[in-house]
Amino acid sequence: MKREFEHIKVIGFDADDTLWVNETYFRDAELEFARLLASYETANKIDQELFKMEMKNLELYGYGVKGFVLSMVEMALELSDHTISVETIGKILDIGKAMLNKPVELLDGVEDTLKELSQTHRLILVTKGDLLDQERKLEKSNLTSYFHHIEVLSDKQTTNYMGLLSHLDIEPSEFLMVGNSLKSDILPIIEIGAKAIHVPFHTTWLHEQVSDQQKKDKEYKTISSLNELRGVLG
Amino acid sequence: MKREFEHIKVIGFDADDTLWVNETYFRDAELEFARLLASYETANKIDQELFKMEMKNLELYGYGVKGFVLSMVEMALELSDHTISVETIGKILDIGKAMLNKPVELLDGVEDTLKELSQTHRLILVTKGDLLDQERKLEKSNLTSYFHHIEVLSDKQTTNYMGLLSHLDIEPSEFLMVGNSLKSDILPIIEIGAKAIHVPFHTTWLHEQVSDQQKKDKEYKTISSLNELRGVLG
Repeated sequence: MKREFEHIKVIGFDADDTLWVNETYFRDAELEFARLLASYETANKIDQELFKMEMKNLELYGYGVKGFVLSMVEMALELSDHTISVETIGKILDIGKAMLNKPVELLDGVEDTLKELSQTHRLILVTKGDLLDQERKLEKSNLTSYFHHIEVLSDKQTTNYMGLLSHLDIEPSEFLMVGNSLKSDILPIIEIGAKAIHVPFHTTWLHEQVSDQQKKDKEYKTISSLNELRGVLG
Repeated sequence: MKREFEHIKVIGFDADDTLWVNETYFRDAELEFARLLASYETANKIDQELFKMEMKNLELYGYGVKGFVLSMVEMALELSDHTISVETIGKILDIGKAMLNKPVELLDGVEDTLKELSQTHRLILVTKGDLLDQERKLEKSNLTSYFHHIEVLSDKQTTNYMGLLSHLDIEPSEFLMVGNSLKSDILPIIEIGAKAIHVPFHTTWLHEQVSDQQKKDKEYKTISSLNELRGVLG
């Protein structure tokens, strides 16, 4: 282990778009939603309005598929000025159920990396999604045995991570977070003095995007797939 | 501390209907839902069908308000044979938002009991609801400081509790669970060899009800409010 990482006891892995494909499914769902409402607005406008609705409801619904579906239903009512057909509402519910039933598609190098690191470190899954949905994905992924447990956070801000460390009874210097979202997995982790390694995914939800200013002078490593993680840790 | 409880290190408290009112709000929501659909069916039949829909969706949606709302929308479409108005769909979404925005009404003796026990034990909140919703209730309740952290379980069966104990790194004999649901808080806990104390709430969701046969010969204490908890522990 390189000196920089020699104190690490627990490695937290983000789940969606770090271990397996997720954002792609949300994008597909948004496309389908836009097709359902195509007679009311352009796809681009529907996308924008749906995002606004999700942000308006985020504090109440939180992250995950169920809140996303509720926001789609509300958006359909609003955008159609209550002229949408109830059949379309049914189709929106179906989009959500199909998302929850998607197969799990692992990203490159995930299994080998977890297998090896689980022999030297306590690995935990750190997610802000819905617990049941994440447990189901973990089960489908066959990766369960590599993780000590799942930590669900209602958000991934510094206070949530400080709560997590206190709950794990470890110091910031003993924690490494690996994930695809600069905003959720990397910047708050650096802020609390823990280590972070960034594995970008090709698609990033608008809500997770950060400006160059926000990441300026922040110290974190970037790798292009989990395959490189063991090399970076040394 | 009485001998029976002297090894207890961690006390888990169920949240809904153990610390604060919850089921009452679901019952109110069901009544409102039945009123919205009154032109299609009797209140009793609507109640039964909604429960069936919730059970059908439980594996996919899990527990909590958001899944409940999605089931109400689906039920409204089905029960009305897709003739329901979209205004009514909007009102169903509003029922859900109102539930998430309800004030927190603490049950008898909660604050004093937690205050005192938090000085001698590690207290955790153990819930199968939605994390964000439970964090929000905990915040509104002003009880946050008494709890070490919140544990969200996707269900409260023996396997979930075994996972919890392994995650807490304690033995069954060191764990006491306090809650209102025999099915979720008491019977699985006895099954894994931990201690349980039952605090019944006046209303129990049909899904949480157990038969006399299931509770026969099970060893747990019952108290009528949290006020009695310290007395029982000794």
